[in-house]
This record gives sequence, structure tokens and C-alpha cells, in this order.
Amino acid sequence: MKDASSWKPTHHVSCLTHSAFASSLASSMGESAVTVMASLPQSSPVSSLSPPEVPMELHVQNRVKLVRALRDHLMAASQPVRGFVLLQGGEEQTRYCTDHVELFRQESYFAYLFGVREPGFYGAIDVLSGQSVLFAPRLPAEYAVWLGEIKGLSYFKERYMVDMTYFVDEIAQVLYDLDGESGKPLLFLLHGLNTDSKNFSKPAEFKEMEKFETDLITLHPILTECRVFKSKLELDLIQYANDVSSEAHVEVMRRISADMKEYQLESIFLHHIYMYGGCRHCSYTCICATGENSAVLHYGHAAAPNDRALKEGDIALFDMGAEYHFYGSDITCSFPVSGKFTNDQAAIYNAVLKAHDSVIKSMSPGVSWIDMHKLAEKIILESLETFGIIVGDIDEMVAERLGAIFLPHGLGHLLGIDTHDPGGYTKGMERPKEPGLSSLRTVRELKEGMVITVEPGCYFIDALLNPALEHPILSKFLKKEELDRFKNFGGVRIESDVVVTSNGSRNLTNVPRQTWEIEAVMAGEPWPLKQK
Amino acid sequence: MKDASSWKPTHHVSCLTHSAFASSLASSMGESAVTVMASLPQSSPVSSLSPPEVPMELHVQNRVKLVRALRDHLMAASQPVRGFVLLQGGEEQTRYCTDHVELFRQESYFAYLFGVREPGFYGAIDVLSGQSVLFAPRLPAEYAVWLGEIKGLSYFKERYMVDMTYFVDEIAQVLYDLDGESGKPLLFLLHGLNTDSKNFSKPAEFKEMEKFETDLITLHPILTECRVFKSKLELDLIQYANDVSSEAHVEVMRRISADMKEYQLESIFLHHIYMYGGCRHCSYTCICATGENSAVLHYGHAAAPNDRALKEGDIALFDMGAEYHFYGSDITCSFPVSGKFTNDQAAIYNAVLKAHDSVIKSMSPGVSWIDMHKLAEKIILESLETFGIIVGDIDEMVAERLGAIFLPHGLGHLLGIDTHDPGGYTKGMERPKEPGLSSLRTVRELKEGMVITVEPGCYFIDALLNPALEHPILSKFLKKEELDRFKNFGGVRIESDVVVTSNGSRNLTNVPRQTWEIEAVMAGEPWPLKQK
Repeated sequence: MKDASSWKPTHHVSCLTHSAFASSLASSMGESAVTVMASLPQSSPVSSLSPPEVPMELHVQNRVKLVRALRDHLMAASQPVRGFVLLQGGEEQTRYCTDHVELFRQESYFAYLFGVREPGFYGAIDVLSGQSVLFAPRLPAEYAVWLGEIKGLSYFKERYMVDMTYFVDEIAQVLYDLDGESGKPLLFLLHGLNTDSKNFSKPAEFKEMEKFETDLITLHPILTECRVFKSKLELDLIQYANDVSSEAHVEVMRRISADMKEYQLESIFLHHIYMYGGCRHCSYTCICATGENSAVLHYGHAAAPNDRALKEGDIALFDMGAEYHFYGSDITCSFPVSGKFTNDQAAIYNAVLKAHDSVIKSMSPGVSWIDMHKLAEKIILESLETFGIIVGDIDEMVAERLGAIFLPHGLGHLLGIDTHDPGGYTKGMERPKEPGLSSLRTVRELKEGMVITVEPGCYFIDALLNPALEHPILSKFLKKEELDRFKNFGGVRIESDVVVTSNGSRNLTNVPRQTWEIEAVMAGEPWPLKQK
Repeated sequence: MKDASSWKPTHHVSCLTHSAFASSLASSMGESAVTVMASLPQSSPVSSLSPPEVPMELHVQNRVKLVRALRDHLMAASQPVRGFVLLQGGEEQTRYCTDHVELFRQESYFAYLFGVREPGFYGAIDVLSGQSVLFAPRLPAEYAVWLGEIKGLSYFKERYMVDMTYFVDEIAQVLYDLDGESGKPLLFLLHGLNTDSKNFSKPAEFKEMEKFETDLITLHPILTECRVFKSKLELDLIQYANDVSSEAHVEVMRRISADMKEYQLESIFLHHIYMYGGCRHCSYTCICATGENSAVLHYGHAAAPNDRALKEGDIALFDMGAEYHFYGSDITCSFPVSGKFTNDQAAIYNAVLKAHDSVIKSMSPGVSWIDMHKLAEKIILESLETFGIIVGDIDEMVAERLGAIFLPHGLGHLLGIDTHDPGGYTKGMERPKEPGLSSLRTVRELKEGMVITVEPGCYFIDALLNPALEHPILSKFLKKEELDRFKNFGGVRIESDVVVTSNGSRNLTNVPRQTWEIEAVMAGEPWPLKQK
């Protein structure tokens, strides 16, 4: 036996106390899968996280919900209540011509209905009976040598709680047998527009498809609408992803210092969510922007890869979220690298925080998301005016869309299995034309069960400010001599994940938000702060 | 100012002393880009790594080498020495229908010639003049708001050390102007088989291609052959990737304990290579196999995701490698989770280690890789016979291919910008038919400058052992009652990256290999071990 105590790292305590959320999740999900920190000394817990078992009932419920909605739709349209929903799961992809296999992540609609982590599956649901069928790929014998045990159909039936399992090459026969009628059975296939990417989902394809009638119109809007409203079990997962990410953000705040590179903070975040949270995937590529990079809304990609060296006076804008069993989180924290806000940093930060808090306080069923965007924008403009870097009548600024110079992106987006969850625009909804509002990923009225990010920001972006300073109308609001000071300031974004409840909203994100909270945590205080 | 000393983690020293390799790399590459550990107390360095600047001369040299080889080929074939090599770089991919963008990694042939990290480029080389041209995508104005500064053509010209830069939409015009002859200019496009994936590389496509003659045959084998032999600068990068990965493997060895899950060791590795080594990408998905999973050769993928809970008596087989500026590493360490080898573990381990060491000692230009595979196999069989779990005449076992039951994969593969670097089979080379040998990714004779993995293994795989125990000939070699003890043992693999030198070989990997070295490091000794 080696001496364990001699080589264990002694981390600083970053502990979120085990939150009420985490406890409720653990109990709602049965016993915890693992307590990862058991080996660490009790006196210095690195994390309070404990990856929970995933309840596959979640996907059973998702299927029941879809079948109900489909039946309602068919009955309302006086169409026969029959046919099969058929979805094709994702396949592993190799990189270009090589045999380098990218780590597989299931297609999101398929994940929603079946929760399957393996590639190469199909899934069907009988609209009449509600019965579900998974079709597994038939694996060659060598698979057992190279890739692991070939699991039997009964394994998948039990694991994914479906009614039947067959092989992919049996789809046509099985569906014919289940249908039992003369004539071609009807398949509801997934085909529709993703309003963020402008891509279309790819309908299932399989051998002998020509033996079926296919409907490419009905399924997509109904299934998308199911995904918009989260069940209790879905909310538990999104809460867990938020707990993991919140704790990791706190860890990043504690460990940042001016002699680091941006990607080192990304590494700390990724390590925390995987090591302690069991999250192998992020919801999206980490945005670890400091200094002027914090004005680049989607920094962090391959061409701008979080590789700047930090400076003491920088603002840091870190937009990072963990994913757990497909369900994601999307959190942004902004704070000074030095650990202490300067006057300028505090002013911009508090403008954004006031917008963030006001929006969350105003959210409830029936509220228009466009109004929320406008609210955030107005609060930010008022604060900038009070601070003295813009001047003039606020309503006039709003009308002239000055807000979109400082907040060019939408206030927030639906969140779930995709970071930009689908359903932001339903049929007939038009994207606004006005600057700023045109970036909104949804313009819906809020309803109970929606999870949406609230992410106001205030940025000093040369590509927007310079033309505005030349603009005949916008320029008169801008105090150039003051704005010059913000040339390399970057920007601030504050982003939380919020669920709309029956009478308001609940913030799922739990990170230091007040400037004094951030300063205290960066100085080593525990989070949440102890009552004094 | 926050008090930095209060929140810094105190890691245990994992230090590889700053190796001769790393020093030589740093000096050959100019000043180090960053010393990441500057903020940590001098007394407890976490890492000796320091990500070096990447010398773009490397890619200039690669282009020069290709042009020479192409000219030689054309002259030998009495073809005119003219035309343009034209390659299309990779594009960012979104996940299914969503706007989730996967982190971009450049296509490997394009990376080899141009070293470009950004997506959407094309590159051309004039065969006659040797001049190189990069074609950058023309980015829309919004790019500056969402994705960052739009860099000018002169930026790319300087960064990537090419002779000219234009936009992608100018390809046809630029090449016509450079050609300056009447008639259609000739393009050498990349089209050929990857002998590992059986996929074909995709030739460049662009608007107005019909205005050119195209040659799809000449380029691929010549460019692939260029990649097989590594330059000094390429070897420096592969050495650095090995230094990073070696240190991270040592860190994993130190921190493993029986109350962890496999993925936590993956997380420790990933964090170490990124945090201290600046490596954002791995060469391949980490294989973190313990217990019976160590008999699954390519464990760790989405359907077998490193999620087993460790047990004290397990063998651990960790196959993980960092990538730095496209160049990779591929290292496997096997060791007991407990920190102490049992008799059985030591016997199997030493059988594999003897094969590993003997192969490396035998490698030099002119040696056949098939012979090396057979050597490894024979040594392992001899050891198993001595240990008393198989019985009979070794030559007879070899002839009957018993070795392929215990070592079903090839001894090793070329390594470079791809983990399975291309060029393992040149035109006319046949893949062997015999079990074991048929898995070889190359059957070439070794030559100076090749980098190849040496990765013998010995596994107890039910899917191979059970049929062998029923086999009329193979069964007589197998001592069933002894082998039963190895039912859930898993397997051992030892893998190093080795460069063939003018008169032998050099191992680029630097991890504890002897059982006593492993036990000492796992008990907390520094690596390399101090002389006593």
C-alpha cells in the first residue's frame, strides 16, 4: 500500500456548502452515484458535488408528453391517431479522412426522447399505443476486442426503459408488425428549421423506407414545443449542471491572478466540472476573455483561443457552463483580475447587475421577452448616463437604438439539451428588425417551465462605437472624451439561468454577484458568504 | 489587491526535472511563450513545463520538402515542372441542426503545410517557383462584434510566413496571374486513401474550378511520404508533447486511489496538459481503463466512457497523449491502483516491458516492423510460458498465431500530426493476413526520421480466450486452470513514442517503466528518481 497522505493535493476550500438544490436532486434521483472526494481529508473539501444517478423516467415522461401532444394535434386536425414517430440518433464522426474519432455526443432531439449515450441507434414511438422501441446497431464480433462488451438488446431495454428493443436492420419489419394494418404505415419524421443556426434537422433514413408513408411536417414543431417546457426531472438536471458550474466559476475566481493565461482558467473550470461534477462535456466552448477580449461576444474559439496573458487591471469575462446527461448550463461571471473593482469597473458592472436583477424580478408568466430586453437596455443606459459617459434623454436613446451599441446581443435564450434550445420562434413569429432586438433568439411571452438565460451585458466594441461616434444622431449621446477611457476596457456580462415559475421566476445559478461578494470570495472567503 | 498567498493551491511536486529535451526545445524555438508557474511558490513546483513559441519555419521547411519531392517526381516522369499544389483547409462544424460549434482542429495535411489554426482557408504552392499563397476567408463585418478582430491579410502573411495572402474568392484569378501561361493551369489536388480509416481525403473545391486542369493522383502519395520523415523542428514539437504527457502521466500515477472513478484520472491528465503544458487538444480520446476494462483496447469512448469505480486490486491501463500545435504524443502507462504490483501483475507487466525494451533496443534503419512485432510477441509468449500459464513449444505457438490471442493489435504505428499518421502502407504493400499481424498499421522497414509507437500489450480478452480454449490446436497451449485466475485481470500495455535515428532509436517518452520505479513514484518519490 502506498501512503496516500503523502501525495494528496491540498486544495484551498472552494466549498459551496452542499446546497438545498443538490440535496433535493440527490434524493429525487436515488442514491448518489459516487462521492468523489471521499479520499480527501475531511478538513479541506475541494467540492461539495456528487454526480447523481440519472433517472431514465425523465425520458419516459418526455415520450409520454410527446405522444399526448401528437394525439391532441391529430384529433384536432381530424386525422387518424396512428403512425410512428421515428428518429435517427447520431453517429460517431471521424476527423476528415483519418480514423480519429471525435468524442460522440448524442443528437439533441434523440437525447430528449430516449436518453441514449451510444451512437448508431434509432428510436420509434407508436402514436396509438404509446409503446417505444429502440433499434440498436448490430455490432461486429471484433467490437468486443476493440471497443468493449457487446451489450444485448435486453440491456438497452432495461437501461433506457423502453418497451421493446430490436436491431436497426429490423426497423421495417418491426414497424409493419406493430402496425398490423394493411397499407403502408405512417412515419412522423423530424424535419424543421433551427431558428438559431438556420439549419434543418435531418429526417431519419433507413433501408426499405420506401415501404412507408412519411410525414415531414407534423413532428418538428410539436416535439420542439415539448422541449420548451421543462419537467421536474429536467429541472433537477439543469439545476445540477448549474451547481457544478457555479462551484467551478467560484474556483476560477479564487485562483485567477495576473501572471496567468486565459486558457489556464478554462482548464481550472474544465477540471472542476469533470473531476468533481462528473461532467465530461461543456455546453459550449469556454469563453475566457480578459481585457479588450471581453468585448468579443463569442471569444474562445479556435481563431481566438483564450491565449492572452492577463494583466492586473483587466476585467475578466468568463462564460462557461457544464453539461450533465445532455442538460446544460450557461453562466457568465465578470470580475476584476486584481480582485478589487476600480471605479470604472464597478460602474459598468453595477449597471449590468441592476439590469440582470431587475429582469429576474420582473419575470413571470405572461411577460414579453422583448419587454425584458428593453428593460435591461434602458437600465443600462440610465446607469451610463448617471455615470456620465453618455448624455441626453433616455427615451430618445432607446428610440434611436443606442442601447444596441452597448448591448448588441439578445438578453437571453432558452436553455436545455442545447445551449440555444430550440423553440425561440414558433410558426409565424417574426424576428424584430431593430438593432439589438434583431439578435433576440426568442421573442416569446414567458410561460411556466421555460428555462431562459438572463444575460445583459455592456461592452465597448470599437466596431460599433467608432461608427456610432460618426453617426449624426447617435454621436450626440456619446461623451467621446469619457468613452476614450474605455478604449481597451472590454465589457461586462452577467448571465444566470432562470426558470419561469407559476408566479415569478427562480434563479438556478448560485455565484457571487454583488461586487463585495466577488471581492470577498476572491480574497478567500467561503461561498456562500458566512452570515456575520 | 487580494492576498495571493491565501488562495493558491499547494500541489504536491510532480516535477520531472526540466529535461534536456525541454531545454533544447526552448532554445531551438526562441524564448518561451510563458512560464505558467511563476505565481506558485518556488518550493513546490507543480510542473516544469513551459509552452514554447511555435516556429513557423517548420511549415516553411515542410513546403520546401514537398516542392523538392514533387519536382523530382515530375522530372523523373518527364512531366513539365509546373502547376500548383492546392489544399483546402478545414471548416468549423456545427452539431447536427444546431448552432453548437465544435472546437475546430485543422485538417492534418493542411496543418502540415501551412500551420494555420483558423478555419476556412485555402493554401497553394507554385511548384515551379516554390512560392506559397494563403487564401483567407472574407469575413462579414459582424464577425468583429461576435468573434473578434478581423485580421488583415498582412497579419496572416507574417504569422504563417507565406509569400502572398489573398482572399478565398480570389483563388482562380491569383493562380491564373501566377501561372502566366496560356491554357488552363494545372492543380495538384489531394486525393488518396487513408489506410487506417479507409476514407479518402477530399480534394479542394472552389468556385471556377472548371477553369483548371486537375491532377488527383500525384500529390497524395508524395505529400504523405513527406509526412513520414520528421524534421528537427517537428521532432522538437513531438518531444514537447511527450514531455507534457509524460509529466501528466506521472501526476495521474501519484494521485490515483481506489475510491476514485476512471474519469477523474482523465480529468487530472487533461488539466495537467492544458494548465501547465498549454495543450488544448489531446491526440485522441483518453483511454482510462481499470480492472477488466484494461482488456478493451479502445476503451473510453462515449459508449464506454471511463466511468467505472476503481478497486484496490485493479491494474490501471492509461493510454493518453497531448497534442501541441498539431503534433501529438501517444503514451500508455500500466500500473497497479494499489501502488504495489501483485505477483500476477508483475509477471504480466514484466513480460510486456521486456518486449517493449527489446524492440526499442533492436530498432534501427533497415529493420522490418513485422519482425519487431514478431519479436515482441515471442518474448511475451516466452514469459507467459516461464510464468506457467501457457505450455508448449514457442516456435509452434508462433506458427499457430497464439500470440494474437494475447496481443491482438499491432506493435505500433507512425505518429505525427495524426495519432495514426498516414504512410503506413505505400503503394503495393499488402496487409498481412495472419491474426495479429493483420492489425499492423504499418509493415514498413524502419528509416531514419520515422516516429513510431512501440506498444506491446498482453490482455486476457474473453472474446479471444474463450474460442481459443475450444480450439483444437490453440487449446493445447493454454493452461485453463491457471488462466481462470486472469478472468477479470484485464491487460497491460506499455507504449512509448520512438524516433528512428541514423544508427538506432531514441525514446521520446519519459515515464517510470520498471516496477520499482512505478512503485517509488506512486509512493511519492520525485521523477526521475534521485540517484542513491
